[in-house]
Amino acid sequence: MMSILKSWRLLPTLLGMAQLMTIAAMADAAEPPPNIVILFADDLGYGDLGCYGHPSIRTPNLDRMAAEGLRFTDFYAAESVCTPSRAALLTGRLPVRSGMCSDRRRVLFPDSAGGLPANEITMAEALKSAGYVTACIGKWHLGHLPGHLPTRHGFDEYFGLPYSNDMDRTTAAPQGRAAFLNPRDAYWNVPLLRNDQILERPARQEHLTRRYTEEALEFIRRHKSRPFFLYFPHTFPHVPLFASDRFKGRSARGLYGDAVEELDWSVGQVLAALRREGVAERTLVFFTSDNGPWLTQSEQGGSAGLLHEGKGSTWEGGMREPAIAWWPGRIGPGRVTSELGSTLDLFATSLKLAGAAVPEDRVIDGVDLSPLLFGTGPSPRDTMFFYRGTRLYAVRHGSFKAHWITQSAYGPDAPQEHNPPLLYHLGHDPSERFNVADRHPEILDSIVAIVRRHQAGLISAPTQLESLIGSSP
Amino acid sequence: MMSILKSWRLLPTLLGMAQLMTIAAMADAAEPPPNIVILFADDLGYGDLGCYGHPSIRTPNLDRMAAEGLRFTDFYAAESVCTPSRAALLTGRLPVRSGMCSDRRRVLFPDSAGGLPANEITMAEALKSAGYVTACIGKWHLGHLPGHLPTRHGFDEYFGLPYSNDMDRTTAAPQGRAAFLNPRDAYWNVPLLRNDQILERPARQEHLTRRYTEEALEFIRRHKSRPFFLYFPHTFPHVPLFASDRFKGRSARGLYGDAVEELDWSVGQVLAALRREGVAERTLVFFTSDNGPWLTQSEQGGSAGLLHEGKGSTWEGGMREPAIAWWPGRIGPGRVTSELGSTLDLFATSLKLAGAAVPEDRVIDGVDLSPLLFGTGPSPRDTMFFYRGTRLYAVRHGSFKAHWITQSAYGPDAPQEHNPPLLYHLGHDPSERFNVADRHPEILDSIVAIVRRHQAGLISAPTQLESLIGSSP
Repeated sequence: MMSILKSWRLLPTLLGMAQLMTIAAMADAAEPPPNIVILFADDLGYGDLGCYGHPSIRTPNLDRMAAEGLRFTDFYAAESVCTPSRAALLTGRLPVRSGMCSDRRRVLFPDSAGGLPANEITMAEALKSAGYVTACIGKWHLGHLPGHLPTRHGFDEYFGLPYSNDMDRTTAAPQGRAAFLNPRDAYWNVPLLRNDQILERPARQEHLTRRYTEEALEFIRRHKSRPFFLYFPHTFPHVPLFASDRFKGRSARGLYGDAVEELDWSVGQVLAALRREGVAERTLVFFTSDNGPWLTQSEQGGSAGLLHEGKGSTWEGGMREPAIAWWPGRIGPGRVTSELGSTLDLFATSLKLAGAAVPEDRVIDGVDLSPLLFGTGPSPRDTMFFYRGTRLYAVRHGSFKAHWITQSAYGPDAPQEHNPPLLYHLGHDPSERFNVADRHPEILDSIVAIVRRHQAGLISAPTQLESLIGSSP
Repeated sequence: MMSILKSWRLLPTLLGMAQLMTIAAMADAAEPPPNIVILFADDLGYGDLGCYGHPSIRTPNLDRMAAEGLRFTDFYAAESVCTPSRAALLTGRLPVRSGMCSDRRRVLFPDSAGGLPANEITMAEALKSAGYVTACIGKWHLGHLPGHLPTRHGFDEYFGLPYSNDMDRTTAAPQGRAAFLNPRDAYWNVPLLRNDQILERPARQEHLTRRYTEEALEFIRRHKSRPFFLYFPHTFPHVPLFASDRFKGRSARGLYGDAVEELDWSVGQVLAALRREGVAERTLVFFTSDNGPWLTQSEQGGSAGLLHEGKGSTWEGGMREPAIAWWPGRIGPGRVTSELGSTLDLFATSLKLAGAAVPEDRVIDGVDLSPLLFGTGPSPRDTMFFYRGTRLYAVRHGSFKAHWITQSAYGPDAPQEHNPPLLYHLGHDPSERFNVADRHPEILDSIVAIVRRHQAGLISAPTQLESLIGSSP
């Protein structure tokens, strides 16, 4: 087998690519639907990868993934914090429709009783119905009581943390952010679960990326003969930052870089496993993150690059993310696109590829990005809504973004309303520095019309983030 | 010939690379010294290229140059404004030693009588002595009176503007920055020179990048059989921004992007010409810029990416620049380095490659970067001095940078002195947000010692930037 593989590698590049493309085209009709793999970082900033310009973090595996696939410059997480962002990814719906957002508690905490409502249809449920085997490996954060865990939402297997790794702080930990400067496992009593059972508590956080990766590779190996859906939401680079011995102290970027570089290693391992198991040419892999960098964590937080603000904010730095799509033989190498996409779209895109029906009994906010992925047409997405909790703060349409409300990501300042809204041209001014509202009244009018249509049909669900364990609902 | 080339391309990649390397090594002794090409942008920011993470500017030629060569993450212009930066590049000396800086007039203006002193040795003079044919194509800005032009400083040929394209403003121009919003040639009476003669006045700025490029290609074609030095300092993306019809209105980044994308096209044309003329394998090409983005020009200014501040400042954004070294067969493809380098080093590096002696009668601040370029060892540069005019504001040593003085790039604010100095770890904190002086007193001590040694041997030359035409010297 090795010698065959080697001789393949010795074939001329162009000839080999042409053959692969022919094989892919011929095989299309007969082959099973593709595997779907979503690699999801936590709090990774727009500027934190080599291929997005970071000077001191080295991400050769993600850079290579981008060189072999499609890199997005204008791809958005659905919200600027964990819980709503993840709910939107898995359901294809704005969090305001599922109740997975709140203006008071922006995410779920260990004392939360709520979670993703059972009547929401997750990507895992839809793909499972279409014959996929499904796994969630990593951080869940959509409800940690037994009724809310991944195994109740369409995942055949689950291995990971039920919420963020900085929750469940113990009395052993120093106060405030001091705990993050030299973090130890004993500072957080966060459990590691397999399916519904606690495997380890507190989780050995320095082992998490490695163990998640081993689980993912094992899942791929076991299920290579059938279509599978692997949702792989990493725990890092969310604080507290941990890395295994092999990575700790290695990055020029410090502990944050160590964690990102181990994440990059993990991505390389997954892609290598897909090749090794012979399924790379029938697997779509999508890499992105849940929200922007947690800037208030100082050196322990990431960078949004040239974008303004970070996690928690509806400025670009809060929601625009690195994003890379990879599918050898189907997604042409070395492409870069500035068309719009969002984690909201992974639901419809995956279901379409799987041949599964997109639910028609509810509003789906995502679109099928296939034309953009495969280079057959423009992105069907031309608009992005920027919610903070239940309130719509900003809307992007084409190159323009209007802000009705702005607010610092964290801190005591109140929301600031703008009438007329601020307007930025994100192509000319990606850092949102120059308000051009007075130069483009017609653009503002068209965005106002979009907002009216959006809000006219919107039914907000009651929030799931405010009920507490032991309280009456 | 084509069929031989094609069959070469069909050889297996690894085998081909090994052979090329052997051929290069064997040929070393017999071949003439390499051609040197310096492609130099004006006011290009650290974040303005695709391969440095810009979302809406497309630079496929520079990205490819980086993929085929060595990309620097920590490369510095020698100063944060035009004239001193260029003087340092061509002499390998800090501007304070040549008098090409001032605390009052930071650059030369059309009313300036001064220029680079005749007793300075330029890279062109040194390479000419070693048998090179030399050309300067583009913006000079080291003195525009006849005695200071490129032809008096070792360049056999000159084609370009004697100073910045926003100088010599006419009464036809609107006041202030309004002239840059919709710029026209008639707003600036800037001349286009060939050698010592004015070809055109005002220069047709929309044609400049194309004409410079044609001149460069013609120079390469004419001199491909002998070693040549081509110094190609572009006029753009300095304001006022112009682009030829083919590029105007094409970039998603607006007029700034049009100008950068035409610059990128020009780089592609030069590299293609080197290949076409068969000299690529004996030519070192170095791309960088003179200083950071001119942030006060709003949408007409560039971006320093995640770096703080821009042109005119000793914060990283003022002096850290995109930089790419390219030499097929000698510089391995796809390398990224975070070791230090500076435009100050291009003098010593080029002279070494040319087999020319580095002058011993004066202090040369640059080092020979060959070990870093060819992957044979670390960069000989471990320290960078950040001057603003005649005053030393900051020093980087290894990963740490100490600021004794900080000041906004432009505007009325006075220099702010820091005692103890501010200290940043640029690996952990490339945006210079977190002062860690109290955590690293020993680092500060070592940088203070470096400054003492530097200043003990420093002889400042009288400034050349303050004498005016028609005044007594």
